[in-house]
Amino acid sequence: MSTARLETFADGVFAIAATLLILNVDAQVGEHSGAIGDRLLAIWPSNIAYAVSFVTIGIIWSNHHTVLAQLGRVNRAFLMQNVLLLMCVAFLPFPTRLVAEHVRDRHDLQPAALAYGATMTVMAVCYITLWLYASHGHRLLREDADPRTVSGITRSYLPGTPLYLTATLIAFASPIASVALFAGIALFYVVESSIFGGASIETA
Amino acid sequence: MSTARLETFADGVFAIAATLLILNVDAQVGEHSGAIGDRLLAIWPSNIAYAVSFVTIGIIWSNHHTVLAQLGRVNRAFLMQNVLLLMCVAFLPFPTRLVAEHVRDRHDLQPAALAYGATMTVMAVCYITLWLYASHGHRLLREDADPRTVSGITRSYLPGTPLYLTATLIAFASPIASVALFAGIALFYVVESSIFGGASIETA
Amino acid sequence: MSTARLETFADGVFAIAATLLILNVDAQVGEHSGAIGDRLLAIWPSNIAYAVSFVTIGIIWSNHHTVLAQLGRVNRAFLMQNVLLLMCVAFLPFPTRLVAEHVRDRHDLQPAALAYGATMTVMAVCYITLWLYASHGHRLLREDADPRTVSGITRSYLPGTPLYLTATLIAFASPIASVALFAGIALFYVVESSIFGGASIETA
Amino acid sequence: MSTARLETFADGVFAIAATLLILNVDAQVGEHSGAIGDRLLAIWPSNIAYAVSFVTIGIIWSNHHTVLAQLGRVNRAFLMQNVLLLMCVAFLPFPTRLVAEHVRDRHDLQPAALAYGATMTVMAVCYITLWLYASHGHRLLREDADPRTVSGITRSYLPGTPLYLTATLIAFASPIASVALFAGIALFYVVESSIFGGASIETA
Repeated sequence: MSTARLETFADGVFAIAATLLILNVDAQVGEHSGAIGDRLLAIWPSNIAYAVSFVTIGIIWSNHHTVLAQLGRVNRAFLMQNVLLLMCVAFLPFPTRLVAEHVRDRHDLQPAALAYGATMTVMAVCYITLWLYASHGHRLLREDADPRTVSGITRSYLPGTPLYLTATLIAFASPIASVALFAGIALFYVVESSIFGGASIETA
Repeated sequence: MSTARLETFADGVFAIAATLLILNVDAQVGEHSGAIGDRLLAIWPSNIAYAVSFVTIGIIWSNHHTVLAQLGRVNRAFLMQNVLLLMCVAFLPFPTRLVAEHVRDRHDLQPAALAYGATMTVMAVCYITLWLYASHGHRLLREDADPRTVSGITRSYLPGTPLYLTATLIAFASPIASVALFAGIALFYVVESSIFGGASIETA
Repeated sequence: MSTARLETFADGVFAIAATLLILNVDAQVGEHSGAIGDRLLAIWPSNIAYAVSFVTIGIIWSNHHTVLAQLGRVNRAFLMQNVLLLMCVAFLPFPTRLVAEHVRDRHDLQPAALAYGATMTVMAVCYITLWLYASHGHRLLREDADPRTVSGITRSYLPGTPLYLTATLIAFASPIASVALFAGIALFYVVESSIFGGASIETA
Repeated sequence: MSTARLETFADGVFAIAATLLILNVDAQVGEHSGAIGDRLLAIWPSNIAYAVSFVTIGIIWSNHHTVLAQLGRVNRAFLMQNVLLLMCVAFLPFPTRLVAEHVRDRHDLQPAALAYGATMTVMAVCYITLWLYASHGHRLLREDADPRTVSGITRSYLPGTPLYLTATLIAFASPIASVALFAGIALFYVVESSIFGGASIETA
């Protein structure tokens, strides 16, 4: 199988998971009563959660391409690893909604933050697993894959799992700090991309 | 990254956001009771709102391609700008539903129209930002990009932000006029395309 | 714009509209109470309606490709005509649900059948319009488009509008006959394709 | 029609059907009351069902590509067979939800397991039908299709229908055993792919 069809399927899941996030905001506004202006103000956490998860999915999508661009072939094991990664991506709208619904409720935020963090951590594990599987001993890499790009990808993906695991564990002490950390990671990436992302020009 | 995969992801979000709009009509008809014929008549604003937002997303999709067709490469900063644009596109079904539910209710229409207008205005800002970023100093343009096409795109996109901002601010005086203006912009574009769009023949 | 990106967007809308149909079945089973076996039997119209609309969307998708395969270029007017066609496609899950909910209720089935038929008729009008626009005077056809294929497409699409209009108008006399006719058209196409569709072999 | 556009449409349906599965989990958690931690624990069947159906769709998607990679052309009959297959794929979220809601309820699990099994069995029939249709007498195969690959595909797909039919019929004796068998088939495939899937390296 060429990487082309993996991209079509993966991009479909990324796009749908991101777009389904808005259904959470929709559902939230329906659960509040009163004037619509008040209800819109009451659901600000849903809007923040929508933005954070949308940007997070956008980042994973962008990184997923960086990986596939280095590959010259795929095999059935790699495809299944991708299915597992996409299963986490498609799951994300669910804990996003839990966090959005409970962000102003210190006690009940804890299980929501743990569910969100566990999803992100498993996703990071799936991510580094498929990259290490594909790149180990040049198993699936293109003939002309640049060694510096390859080791650069490894270096930049390795911290993902401990970072998300830490943010998740922080929820045991302070759920709100955990949630703020997830938002911060997404915000950091967007700002960092805006400042340094201009250097990574690639030919179309 | 080639522009190809950006198109797959973007087209996915455009297609899903447009198609999810029908869920609003679905939800509306469920909220009314009585004979189904009466309920269908009662939800005409949902049908109008569906058509306006669907056409609006179609226009943005068509313009998004016009931009990408001029590019020879993308970078990470540009990708993140696209994620932010798509975040607005995917958000659109939500304020569309608010407007549809409140279009016959003068007082509560105001926050709905403001939410719709704010979404459209932020989207227009994202749009012109990514175009100016890509075209400034030929940063991401194709080698053979036609200067007249490039400056033509700039000219036709620059009025978007003030136009949508004006339509939004009008909601403070008259929400219904604001909503009518958004519908009018979409209708104008469809009619204008039908009359003048035949000239812009491009090779496949 | 090449036809490639129009295909991506269109296929996205086709795929999503078809897949969203299952949400209707989901919603239906939730509205019935009692043992799940009884509820599954009670919602058979939803299952039939799901199948009919899914196959109908599949047929339109297949025909849409036949049209695009003849084109060498597109213009902005043609894109907008496609947006209008896709607007009808994405709308289809809504009247499908109305019909499914009311198929055993002679009186209330009439407005549901009329809504379904109106959607199909407008879709057929959009379809023949964009084809005649593209093929008239070879406006958007490929240089090497086969005249017999082109006139064959015109011949096979022209009856669509009167056929669906007739099925719609029959709903004024007998809603159930109208609905049966829509199901019959879809079933006929599938059977006819199975028997005669083997002849139309095309190179990949 | 080239196989390319069939892939776009099919991948769209696969991706959407897989991603819509999360709406079932969403709906489930809303139906329970109490602290969110308890509710999350109460819906573990939904999470298992989500994973099983997501992986199952991923397997079908991966197999679907293996088939298309052998084809050199398609015809209208083959397209309609694909529409019927995709109709089963898009239907899967519905019986998945039924099973998830009733997995701890021995009596009511039976109709749910039968609905799930019937969907899987019909899907397997559609699958082997379209493969035998395409490969019989090399009807749609590529000129250079490898005979060993072709007969290998036939050998590995033929057991699907009796396997799923058996798992379905077991639901008459023990619904829970039937459901466990469906989960086991998916798990087996993932594990088997991880161990043996590395051998099937294909050029991009």
